[in-house]
Amino acid sequence: MTTVIQKYGGSSLESISKMRAIANKIIESKKIYDKIVIIVSAMGDTTNNLIGLSNEACKSPSKRELDMLLATGEQISASLLTMILKDTGYDAIALTGQQAGVHTKGIFCNAKISDIDISFVNKHLNKGKIVIIAGFQGVNEKGETTTLGRGGSDTTAVAFAARLGCKCEIYTDVEGIYSVDPRLYRKAKKLNFISYEEMKEMSHLGAKVMECRSVEIGHSYQVPIYVASSLNDATGTLIKEWDKKVEKRSITGLSVTDDVLMVTLKNIPYSSSNVAEVFTLLAEAGVSVDIISQTLPRAGLVNLSFTASAQDYKSVKEAMEVIAQKHSNVEIKKDNEIIKLSVVGTGMRTQSGVAAKMFRIFADNQIEFQQVTTSEISISYTLDKTYKQKAVDAVATAFNL
Amino acid sequence: MTTVIQKYGGSSLESISKMRAIANKIIESKKIYDKIVIIVSAMGDTTNNLIGLSNEACKSPSKRELDMLLATGEQISASLLTMILKDTGYDAIALTGQQAGVHTKGIFCNAKISDIDISFVNKHLNKGKIVIIAGFQGVNEKGETTTLGRGGSDTTAVAFAARLGCKCEIYTDVEGIYSVDPRLYRKAKKLNFISYEEMKEMSHLGAKVMECRSVEIGHSYQVPIYVASSLNDATGTLIKEWDKKVEKRSITGLSVTDDVLMVTLKNIPYSSSNVAEVFTLLAEAGVSVDIISQTLPRAGLVNLSFTASAQDYKSVKEAMEVIAQKHSNVEIKKDNEIIKLSVVGTGMRTQSGVAAKMFRIFADNQIEFQQVTTSEISISYTLDKTYKQKAVDAVATAFNL
Repeated sequence: MTTVIQKYGGSSLESISKMRAIANKIIESKKIYDKIVIIVSAMGDTTNNLIGLSNEACKSPSKRELDMLLATGEQISASLLTMILKDTGYDAIALTGQQAGVHTKGIFCNAKISDIDISFVNKHLNKGKIVIIAGFQGVNEKGETTTLGRGGSDTTAVAFAARLGCKCEIYTDVEGIYSVDPRLYRKAKKLNFISYEEMKEMSHLGAKVMECRSVEIGHSYQVPIYVASSLNDATGTLIKEWDKKVEKRSITGLSVTDDVLMVTLKNIPYSSSNVAEVFTLLAEAGVSVDIISQTLPRAGLVNLSFTASAQDYKSVKEAMEVIAQKHSNVEIKKDNEIIKLSVVGTGMRTQSGVAAKMFRIFADNQIEFQQVTTSEISISYTLDKTYKQKAVDAVATAFNL
Repeated sequence: MTTVIQKYGGSSLESISKMRAIANKIIESKKIYDKIVIIVSAMGDTTNNLIGLSNEACKSPSKRELDMLLATGEQISASLLTMILKDTGYDAIALTGQQAGVHTKGIFCNAKISDIDISFVNKHLNKGKIVIIAGFQGVNEKGETTTLGRGGSDTTAVAFAARLGCKCEIYTDVEGIYSVDPRLYRKAKKLNFISYEEMKEMSHLGAKVMECRSVEIGHSYQVPIYVASSLNDATGTLIKEWDKKVEKRSITGLSVTDDVLMVTLKNIPYSSSNVAEVFTLLAEAGVSVDIISQTLPRAGLVNLSFTASAQDYKSVKEAMEVIAQKHSNVEIKKDNEIIKLSVVGTGMRTQSGVAAKMFRIFADNQIEFQQVTTSEISISYTLDKTYKQKAVDAVATAFNL
């Protein structure tokens, strides 16, 4: 008995006619797999329209009720897609997250799946039904509807695949995972596979195809995740465990994070408590600090730089004002014209010289970087925005991405 | 501790700004009542739009999934109204039918409330919260979402009032119950009260303000039902038990049913089995027959007339074709230009002469009727459509409606 989970995104379900095409795709799959579970997102702009209504209702809508509101979007697409399948003669059943046994914990609008009671879904699968589940939602221990935050339908899909021990197919509006965002680099190659670690790192560094959380669940439970287009049959990308015997490439992908805020504090009297104070203030303000760099002390003074998301500009500004009052001779420079360019590859673990090659590329192309930071499988640089395209082209070409 | 149930219809919730007005009405009520439960319909045209989508999806959408689809409409309005109330500083909570403990039995799209587990609602009421419940829906013994059919939100409201032993206020787009539909008779009087029986009879006979079922539940559990406008503070109509000591009026209201189909079968060979056969065929075709009249046998032949809803035209036609084949000399006449005019009044029980007065009115105004039928508290006539306005005016004037 072969089983598959398929997840269809909102743009592939935005109209009844598009849903019909998806129904045909599901029917084709039914010829291959014995058991099929479909996870759906809300139709097209539904979620945004509902958020719009809630924002019209009040400035900061109650999160509990926002979850009840947003969960309707996926319930609508699940019931309509099921009607279409039933109408074509296939036995199918639509389930809300609650009915499908998705139990959650944690806060509204960003709940985590705590458990899936698979018995209800299995009962229907064993009767030969195609099971259509409203993604992105579950029910907490109080019986309240909760949603799973960004990428919640992918999370639902991967969690069901983990629970059923099967493959997870994510059908979306792109043809798979690219080494570089094709909008940035026209010649970007579609990857046949990517490792869980690389995908997590790329999601974390700004690639938008898959949310980090779904990939983490997939990694933990060793769920093969296949990402492909809902519109055609082109081969997509398989996210799986890194295969060190086969894979030779050092760099799998390049990603760019726009709107980085870089702050430089010059002439801080050097002491570990002074430096600690800066990051304590930022943490208290809820700012997530990314890259940190510090110069060597000179005449008892240091320069300290850090980056954060430009979204946190206001919180950063307030924290820095506190510092400025304490150390009147500190010079604070906030730069909003910064991007972060990262290269990611599990191969870096075993292949040295990636950092050296990157420095050489930057030097050859007269690209100045401001900071550099490394993780086990990535290297990131902060650059002035003006270097963005030039750097992407140079790095992508050099590594044949 | 005083408690009230208030139900708001779709037209009063069709936009966020209208919802804000309703929120203010609820807040005013909170000054009078200790505990408030609000039942909401779907916003404006939401239900019709969802039905439209389902019809686009397929010709006869699966009723199970249609219920899952339609139930989202009330969940949307409940969550948005709750957000607005919370934003103005009032503690409120939105509940789906299932969360509010509405258990149902029977078929999808027309389920009946079998029980209300009031504990969850009571828990929140006891904490001082305004409880906002998605009307029109419940959950069956399998955990599936069900809807209650036409007037389902009213049914929800009256059922909750019955369960909590309190008054039920239905806020709608009309100012109350009128003796005659004001669109038919401009001078129609708004009733301060109407008895359950009269209201049931009038709903049954085509008055559209309240569905018969909600009034039946109200009658069974002696729930005072107050029907008023959601847009202004004009006094509405109280539906309650008939008070024979106080009430003198013989006729409370007049109602008209349009699109009546009248069928006359002439020259049927007279035998009870022949007549029975006609109605057996109609029953098997699912046709609900209303008024039946039969002439006295003459030369072994009778004429038989009956009315049904014009919606059943196709089914009636098929049944009559079977009859025509059996009795080749039977002449069948289907007339679609018929209306039914009814007068309703609990007072008829104790005051005689209503029928006589009606015949006199018709005679004085040269109005010909085709059939007449009586129930304990109503008299109905079928008339040619052309007499409609003349008959309404004459009867309404004569009985001072």
